[in-house]
Amino acid sequence: MPSRRDLANAIRFLAIDAVQQANSGHPGMPMGMADIAEVLWNDFLRHDPNDPKWFNRDRFVLSNGHGSMLHYALLHLAGYALSIEELRRFRQLHSKTPGHPEVHETPGIETTTGPLGQGLANAVGMALAEKILARRFNRPDFPLVDHYTYVFAGDGCLMEGISHEVASLAATLQLGKLIVLYDDNGISIDGKVSGWFTDDTPKRFEAYGWEVIPEVDGHNPEAIKAALVTAAADPTKPTLICCKTTIGYGSPNKQGSESTHGAPLGAAEVAATRAALGWTHAPFEIPADIADAFDARAKGRRWHGDWDALRARYQEAHPQLAAEFERCLAGELPSAAREALDGLIATFAAETAAIASRKASQRVLEAIVPAIPELVGGSADLAHSNYSIVKSSRDVVGAEDGGNYVYYGVREFGMSAIANGLVLHGGLRAFTATFLVFSDYARNAVRMGCQMHLPVVHVYTHDSIGLGEDGPTHQPIEHLASLRLIPNNRVWRPCDAVETAVAWKAALERRDGPACLALSRQNLAPQVRTAEQIAAIARGGYVLLDTGSDAIDAILIATGSEVELAMQAARALAAEGRAIRVVSMPCVEAFEAQPLEYRESVLPSWCRRRVAIEAGATAGWYRYVGHEGHVVGLDRFGASAPDKVLWPYFGFTAERVAEQARALLA
Amino acid sequence: MPSRRDLANAIRFLAIDAVQQANSGHPGMPMGMADIAEVLWNDFLRHDPNDPKWFNRDRFVLSNGHGSMLHYALLHLAGYALSIEELRRFRQLHSKTPGHPEVHETPGIETTTGPLGQGLANAVGMALAEKILARRFNRPDFPLVDHYTYVFAGDGCLMEGISHEVASLAATLQLGKLIVLYDDNGISIDGKVSGWFTDDTPKRFEAYGWEVIPEVDGHNPEAIKAALVTAAADPTKPTLICCKTTIGYGSPNKQGSESTHGAPLGAAEVAATRAALGWTHAPFEIPADIADAFDARAKGRRWHGDWDALRARYQEAHPQLAAEFERCLAGELPSAAREALDGLIATFAAETAAIASRKASQRVLEAIVPAIPELVGGSADLAHSNYSIVKSSRDVVGAEDGGNYVYYGVREFGMSAIANGLVLHGGLRAFTATFLVFSDYARNAVRMGCQMHLPVVHVYTHDSIGLGEDGPTHQPIEHLASLRLIPNNRVWRPCDAVETAVAWKAALERRDGPACLALSRQNLAPQVRTAEQIAAIARGGYVLLDTGSDAIDAILIATGSEVELAMQAARALAAEGRAIRVVSMPCVEAFEAQPLEYRESVLPSWCRRRVAIEAGATAGWYRYVGHEGHVVGLDRFGASAPDKVLWPYFGFTAERVAEQARALLA
Repeated sequence: MPSRRDLANAIRFLAIDAVQQANSGHPGMPMGMADIAEVLWNDFLRHDPNDPKWFNRDRFVLSNGHGSMLHYALLHLAGYALSIEELRRFRQLHSKTPGHPEVHETPGIETTTGPLGQGLANAVGMALAEKILARRFNRPDFPLVDHYTYVFAGDGCLMEGISHEVASLAATLQLGKLIVLYDDNGISIDGKVSGWFTDDTPKRFEAYGWEVIPEVDGHNPEAIKAALVTAAADPTKPTLICCKTTIGYGSPNKQGSESTHGAPLGAAEVAATRAALGWTHAPFEIPADIADAFDARAKGRRWHGDWDALRARYQEAHPQLAAEFERCLAGELPSAAREALDGLIATFAAETAAIASRKASQRVLEAIVPAIPELVGGSADLAHSNYSIVKSSRDVVGAEDGGNYVYYGVREFGMSAIANGLVLHGGLRAFTATFLVFSDYARNAVRMGCQMHLPVVHVYTHDSIGLGEDGPTHQPIEHLASLRLIPNNRVWRPCDAVETAVAWKAALERRDGPACLALSRQNLAPQVRTAEQIAAIARGGYVLLDTGSDAIDAILIATGSEVELAMQAARALAAEGRAIRVVSMPCVEAFEAQPLEYRESVLPSWCRRRVAIEAGATAGWYRYVGHEGHVVGLDRFGASAPDKVLWPYFGFTAERVAEQARALLA
Repeated sequence: MPSRRDLANAIRFLAIDAVQQANSGHPGMPMGMADIAEVLWNDFLRHDPNDPKWFNRDRFVLSNGHGSMLHYALLHLAGYALSIEELRRFRQLHSKTPGHPEVHETPGIETTTGPLGQGLANAVGMALAEKILARRFNRPDFPLVDHYTYVFAGDGCLMEGISHEVASLAATLQLGKLIVLYDDNGISIDGKVSGWFTDDTPKRFEAYGWEVIPEVDGHNPEAIKAALVTAAADPTKPTLICCKTTIGYGSPNKQGSESTHGAPLGAAEVAATRAALGWTHAPFEIPADIADAFDARAKGRRWHGDWDALRARYQEAHPQLAAEFERCLAGELPSAAREALDGLIATFAAETAAIASRKASQRVLEAIVPAIPELVGGSADLAHSNYSIVKSSRDVVGAEDGGNYVYYGVREFGMSAIANGLVLHGGLRAFTATFLVFSDYARNAVRMGCQMHLPVVHVYTHDSIGLGEDGPTHQPIEHLASLRLIPNNRVWRPCDAVETAVAWKAALERRDGPACLALSRQNLAPQVRTAEQIAAIARGGYVLLDTGSDAIDAILIATGSEVELAMQAARALAAEGRAIRVVSMPCVEAFEAQPLEYRESVLPSWCRRRVAIEAGATAGWYRYVGHEGHVVGLDRFGASAPDKVLWPYFGFTAERVAEQARALLA
């Protein structure tokens, strides 16, 4: 039998040699956390390498994602479909072993990490998902959803502000099955953390209400094991295990130093480390006894099989619940939700009163929240401004059926990364809510959701200077344009209630990425549309008005609250005998995804007399108006005043829009 | 003599009545914190209403900025040039009383707040500035720089992640003169915080190493006073005073409820509150005895006069230091720094080796850091990747002369907001450093710096897929374009060492806003330029090459590492007989600020055959290439691989650029 140290050394040398081969990467963390990882994976983690997506697996998140080779080594050794050839191709194009873990690239990777602190936040979302689903679906003798969420986190994760937001909330949410192993090696990239990270971390986490196991020797397997047993016992408190480790453990000349963090050890030091740790095997060679000891395929098949049997018995005992469980796992939108949305679109189309799009969004939520029990929403302490809460919202804290609403507190970044985790877990959908301007605080989590193809819906209200008196700190200017820049994002800015409902429908039907809904504080007049026009909204841009029968003298392109200005301007110009087209463009990215033929039918390229109108940064609109057209926008900060004063002050009047068009027609 | 409660009620009713008059605003916080504010301002705060910019004043920061009327009431009562008419015009266009405090709009406002947690971070920067300047300039018997920094913060501030980052660092930095008064009212917008904020906050701050004074009755002036005396005593630990308060204190039917937070009380409740608190005065009427008790002008003149006398004696005793002190206060760049920069530009122009622009930036820092003692820089734990640290960098912790380098740890948002505070304080300049992609984490602090016109320099290295193996989580795509969208920002992306030095010079010469320097990890070939071309770099865009003598067949516009591709493509096309212009555009915003005539000379509007090349999102470039041109960019996430592999994989080759141009010329 190989010793535990031998097993850990297998991880170490896969990491050391892969980084050396790539001549790029981070050996220090895998060398330091190898003993912890070995104990966790061999003695605790319940998973199935034969089926990385087995629903009831324990989740394992590497929040300090630069140590990716640790995870790849574990996956390879445990028997996942990650060959030694892939490890040899660490950090090469199209390998399954990219520089940082990426969820859709490698079997067994649960989330994409690298931007520090967010893995921890995703894990809080996963643990919350487990808790919600367990409450909703488990029945006596049927622990259908029952797993732990384990996290590796480093000093960097704990320095980041997001760690505060999500650790605080994890305690409030009583996520007792969340277990974080803190790699307390005293080193970050700049050197000894004593110069810039002097927190009493155990005390800090106790202050949040966590169970804390301090001073665990991270190179002593028995101590690690004992800590993990203790951690698992408390059903209500998340646990932080503080593991004292040596970064680059085993490297005679570099261990304990930041020089092991982000660069290969070098051939000489690799050899010295082999000698020091007594590892006689060639790079990428794993002795059979060590490979056998790690191989989790048989265990995994058994665990998975037991659960399949449980699931089969559950289907017999609780057929309706079981059917609902399967639906949630498949990620299908309930037909009742589609019907509710279609019904609401028809209802809105028949209404004549002006309402704010945030209010229309709340009416959407009133209709769909009861129809989509797996939709877990919440706001960063702006529920009654975002209109994110509805009658059927039930706090996930305390709700016996698991609940569907999270009071996130004033934690925009944490909220957004937790929502990513809820969706990554599976079985749930998620929406967040805050003011559009505070998307800034959450920006990298939105980006990560785009990169991970996660269909989270971000409800961003107070979408322009139209929010009025709160002033420039609260008035988004660049945010619409800048959210549109993130690859795979969809930004919807509806102009009235009908477009709001369509935007929600599109967001919920989307399976491969997030949607941001930019909604108004102020009332918006409803537009009149034909059935074809209503059907075209989902295409992201469509013809809302043609004042001419055949000709088009100019095209006005607008989004959200500015569509009304475009319509007024068009009518004024029509009265002057001009043929004006108004294009409502609630989602630029959806429009860009349409076939060229459709885009041409909306924006014929021969018509270069174009004015774009949006109460925000202009830079993004030149792709539509080119050199010849105009943009009525705003490239400066706003001001504090009633919105009725601000609109004309900043030049957002129908008259100015008409003038711009007239200038083109002259 | 009016009672202390009478004094506090004067604040309360100015806030109540102004919010009522505006029919918009946040009365709950001013009503809850009025007693604390009264004690702090009348018994502790050393300031001079006659000269709001008196350098040695105590700084007072309202981190919970929605309670702006509290601050306006205090400024008015203390005798600042903020008339009662301005209070009547709360939240109206062009008033000095905007919805949230704005630093350049109102005398006595130290920083713009509203986005929660950032005021606290700015205050950490101010307290750090005080400490650095005191160490540098104070001499025995000459406490020239000697003031406290007081902060009001609410539950929202303490929930935000940034509060963790900066509170942790404030303890490490031993900012003993930072005193935070926490408005522990148990209420946030969504209601009782017990549902989403269950931290033991005193324990949390003790874990950071703060002095904590818990359980102070925030409506008991003697208790508040005692706490403030205790707080001031410890010279090394920042202090958190936890004040138990009642939000909306005095409102019989609404106090203690979130209904007082963000909406007027309503006429009936205003009347009921008048009755309950025994306040018989009409709106905006302050009895003379209360006005007298608050008036700080005489005290302020005395404090200020004493300090002026000290400063005069200091000038005699330490003339050289005094001259340097005056220079720092004036914010003038030392002539030695300009000379160093000009010398370096000449040196770089003569060099032929390719170097990374991050490395060129380090050489700039080597030259200027000794020449600008007031320049305080730091990195979020990437000093040796950002090349932000140089020989003359000295840690602000421990340096006897105050130091000039902050080891910020992994705290991008905190770093950026602290840098804003360093500059807001006066007497210092600041730069930050991290990877460009992690500007996401700091984004709203960059925005606030733009809004506040603060000349902070943000050094963002690893500016594209060119960083290689770290992969898509670390590769910026949308960041250049999205930073350019923030009003008043300047984004520089130099193409070689010469442009890097010019960018630094422009950034340092800028007085009214930040600059972001986007720098490469990989080496960049030096371009050859005439003296005129070198002089033109600062204009943001200039002609780097014309292969034709008179004609221009096509224009290639590029930034940073892609300028080299444009140059290669131009030479290839020239060999085919084409007259190609290459425009290097290191700073779009600087170029846009040039006179039309200059812009036309660089990009003549008659020449529509244009190709823009930048390894990032394309959307922003259509303003230059219009409908007819092409953009060679990247609208998808990157990949993990060596950069030599990634460039051709993503289509960044001279050949592809040439092809795009040929397509236009066909």
